[in-house]
Amino acid sequence: MGKHGVSILGATGSIGTQTLDVLRNFPRMRVRALTGHSNIKQLSESANEFKPETVCVPDAEARIRLRALLDYDCEIVTGDEGLLYCAAESGAATVVNALTGRVGLEPTFAAIQPGVTLALANKESLVTAGPLVTEAVKKAGAKLTLIDSEHSAIMQCIEGGARKNIEKIILTASGGAFRDWPRERIEKAAAAAALRHPTWNMGKKITLDSATMMNKGLEFIEAVYLYGVRPEQVEVLIHPQSIVHSMVQFADGSVMAQLSTADMRIPIQYALLGNTREPNDFPRLDFTGIGSLTFEKPDARRFPCLRIAREAVSRGGTYPAVMNMLNELAVQAYLEGELGFYDLSALIEKAFDSYTDRGLNSPGDIREAEDWAQEFFRKG
Amino acid sequence: MGKHGVSILGATGSIGTQTLDVLRNFPRMRVRALTGHSNIKQLSESANEFKPETVCVPDAEARIRLRALLDYDCEIVTGDEGLLYCAAESGAATVVNALTGRVGLEPTFAAIQPGVTLALANKESLVTAGPLVTEAVKKAGAKLTLIDSEHSAIMQCIEGGARKNIEKIILTASGGAFRDWPRERIEKAAAAAALRHPTWNMGKKITLDSATMMNKGLEFIEAVYLYGVRPEQVEVLIHPQSIVHSMVQFADGSVMAQLSTADMRIPIQYALLGNTREPNDFPRLDFTGIGSLTFEKPDARRFPCLRIAREAVSRGGTYPAVMNMLNELAVQAYLEGELGFYDLSALIEKAFDSYTDRGLNSPGDIREAEDWAQEFFRKG
Repeated sequence: MGKHGVSILGATGSIGTQTLDVLRNFPRMRVRALTGHSNIKQLSESANEFKPETVCVPDAEARIRLRALLDYDCEIVTGDEGLLYCAAESGAATVVNALTGRVGLEPTFAAIQPGVTLALANKESLVTAGPLVTEAVKKAGAKLTLIDSEHSAIMQCIEGGARKNIEKIILTASGGAFRDWPRERIEKAAAAAALRHPTWNMGKKITLDSATMMNKGLEFIEAVYLYGVRPEQVEVLIHPQSIVHSMVQFADGSVMAQLSTADMRIPIQYALLGNTREPNDFPRLDFTGIGSLTFEKPDARRFPCLRIAREAVSRGGTYPAVMNMLNELAVQAYLEGELGFYDLSALIEKAFDSYTDRGLNSPGDIREAEDWAQEFFRKG
Repeated sequence: MGKHGVSILGATGSIGTQTLDVLRNFPRMRVRALTGHSNIKQLSESANEFKPETVCVPDAEARIRLRALLDYDCEIVTGDEGLLYCAAESGAATVVNALTGRVGLEPTFAAIQPGVTLALANKESLVTAGPLVTEAVKKAGAKLTLIDSEHSAIMQCIEGGARKNIEKIILTASGGAFRDWPRERIEKAAAAAALRHPTWNMGKKITLDSATMMNKGLEFIEAVYLYGVRPEQVEVLIHPQSIVHSMVQFADGSVMAQLSTADMRIPIQYALLGNTREPNDFPRLDFTGIGSLTFEKPDARRFPCLRIAREAVSRGGTYPAVMNMLNELAVQAYLEGELGFYDLSALIEKAFDSYTDRGLNSPGDIREAEDWAQEFFRKG
C-alpha cells in the first residue's frame, strides 16, 4: 500500500487540534504521525485516541513522560531529526505543517515528495522561501494547499478559473485587537490587550501578528509567491466581521468571494480533502443575523507592517526572511514587555536600510539572512 | 465552416443592446442574426453596424421600413416564422434569447441543437418548461447558459465545484422599487412608481416584476429546475446594494459569492464566452466606496409573489406556466391602471385553487395551461 493518511506537525496547537477534530469526521483518513512540543499530556491524549504509528517530542525527557502516558505501542522520535522524520517518512499522503514560526521551514522541504499533499498552516515557509517551495513542489509532483482562512478563500475563488485571469487578490483582515484604537493608545498598550482578538480564537504568535497586521503582511507575501501576481495586484481590506475570508477579482470585472463562519475547521477540511468538499455539520452562516458586511482601507500610519511586507516582497530575495526573523524576535520581546508596539516595525525598517541581499537560491541563503537578522536584533 | 458567431433574439431591448455592446469588444464573434419588434430604427442602426446576414421584424410593413433604413444587403424575415428561423437556422454557434415573456419559449426549443450554446435571458423558458428544456439540452448535446446577474453568479460560484455538494442557493434581490414601502402605500402606488428600480436599469416588465418580487420568484423556479435542488434549498435574501449577485452554500459550510457592479455586460460577456473570462474595461467594484453590504429576509406579507412561485414549483407540472401567464397579463393590466398591486398575487392564488394540472410532457401542455390561464383572467 502506498502513502495514505495524514501526519500533523504541531498537533497540539490551535490548527493541530482542529485538524484532529476534522479528522474525527473522516475515519478513512488514518493519522500516521503527530508531533508536539511542550504539551505532552495533550499530545498523549491525541495519540491514545488516534493511534499514530509515530509520535515526535522535543527530547529524551519528554519521550519518557510520553511513553508513560500512552496506552498503546508506537515509535517515539525526538528533536529536529524526529520532526523531519515525521514530515518525510511517516508514510502519510497528506502532511499538515501546523508549526509556528521559522522552525516550520525544513519540515516543509522534507514533506515535498511525489504525490504528497502538503497542507501548509506554517506561514513562514512561503514567506521566507516562497519561490523555492513552489519550485520544489512543481519539480517533485507534489501538491501544495494552504490551511488559512484567507488563502483557502482565494483557492476556492480561483477553483475552475484560470490563474491568468486574476486581476486582483483582495485579502480581508479582521483588523486585529487594535483595529479602532488611536495610534497613541496602541503605542502604550500592554501585550495582554494585543492578545484579545475580536473574531478568531488562535495561538499567541498569530494573534499578536494580527494586532500588528504583520499577519496580513505575511499572507500578502504568500499570495505574491503562490499566484505569481505583482505586489500591486494584492490589496488588503479591513473587514471587521471576518465573514468574507478573501476575494479574487478577475479580468472580466467579476469578484468571487468565499464566506463562512470564523471556523478554521472549514478551511482545514477543504485542505485535507485536497481542495474538494464533503458534508459536515459545522455551524452555518446566518445571513440575516450578520447585520452588515463592511470593508475599509487599512490605516498605514497605525499599521506600518503592511507597508513593510509589501516592501519586503518587492525587494524580493531574502528580505522577507529578514523581516520574518526580526518579527519573530520582536513579537517575543513585545510579549515580554521589552519592546514597544511600534518598535517592531521601526526595527525592521532600520534593518532593511542596512541589509544587503545576496539572492535566494537555496534554504542556506535563508539561514544566512536569519543569522544576520538575529545578529542585528542582538545589537539592537 | 460550422456554426459560428452569435444571433440575438430581442436585439433592441435592454439585454439585446448590451449584448451588442459586449460584442463590440469581441469582433471575432460575428453577429449572424438580429431580431427586433417595435423599434425598427434602432434595429436598423444595429444591423448597419454589425451587418448580420439575417434580420427579423414582426411583419411585412416593418420589413419595408427596415429595408429603407439599411445600408447593406441582407435577408429580412418576418413574424414567428422568422423568429424561429433566426433561432434555429442562422448558423450561429451562440443564440442569445433576450425575448421578454412567454413568446421566448418556442425560439428556445428551436435553438437547442448539437454544439449550440443557448444563452437564455428569457426567464419564461425555464419557468414554464424547465424540465423539458434541460432534457432537450442534454439530449441534443447543446449547452445552456443564463444571462442574468443572479444565475450568472450562481454558475460562477459552482464553477469547478460539484453540483452534488450544493447545500443551498441564496438568491439575492434588490427588493425592487417598493422595498421599504409599507403595504398600505404599495397597495395604492401608481405603476410609474413601480417602474423606478433602485439599482438596475432594465425593461418595463422585469422592473415591474422586481417591484412585486415575482422576478425573484421566476429565478427561484429557474434555480430549482436548473440545479435539481429542492425548493427548500433555495433562499431569497434582500440585498439592497445589488453587489452580491447571488451565493451558493456548499455541503462543507463554505459559501461562494459573486460580486460586481450592477452592470449586465459582465454576465452577458461571461455567457457569450461560454462561461469563461476574458479581460474588459467595464467599471470595477470600489469596496471602500461601497459602505456596507446587508442581507435581510423578504417580507412575505408585502411581497406574496415569492410564496406563490415557491408554491408553483412545489406543485410542479404546468403550475409555473399558469402562474407566469397570469403574471404577464396582470402586469399589463397593472401598468394600464386596471388592476391593483395586490390583485396580481390574489389572482394567481385564486387560479391555483381552481386549476387542475395534467402534467408537463410537451410544449403543448404549456400552451393548454396558458390558454386556461388566459380564459381564467378574462372571466376575472
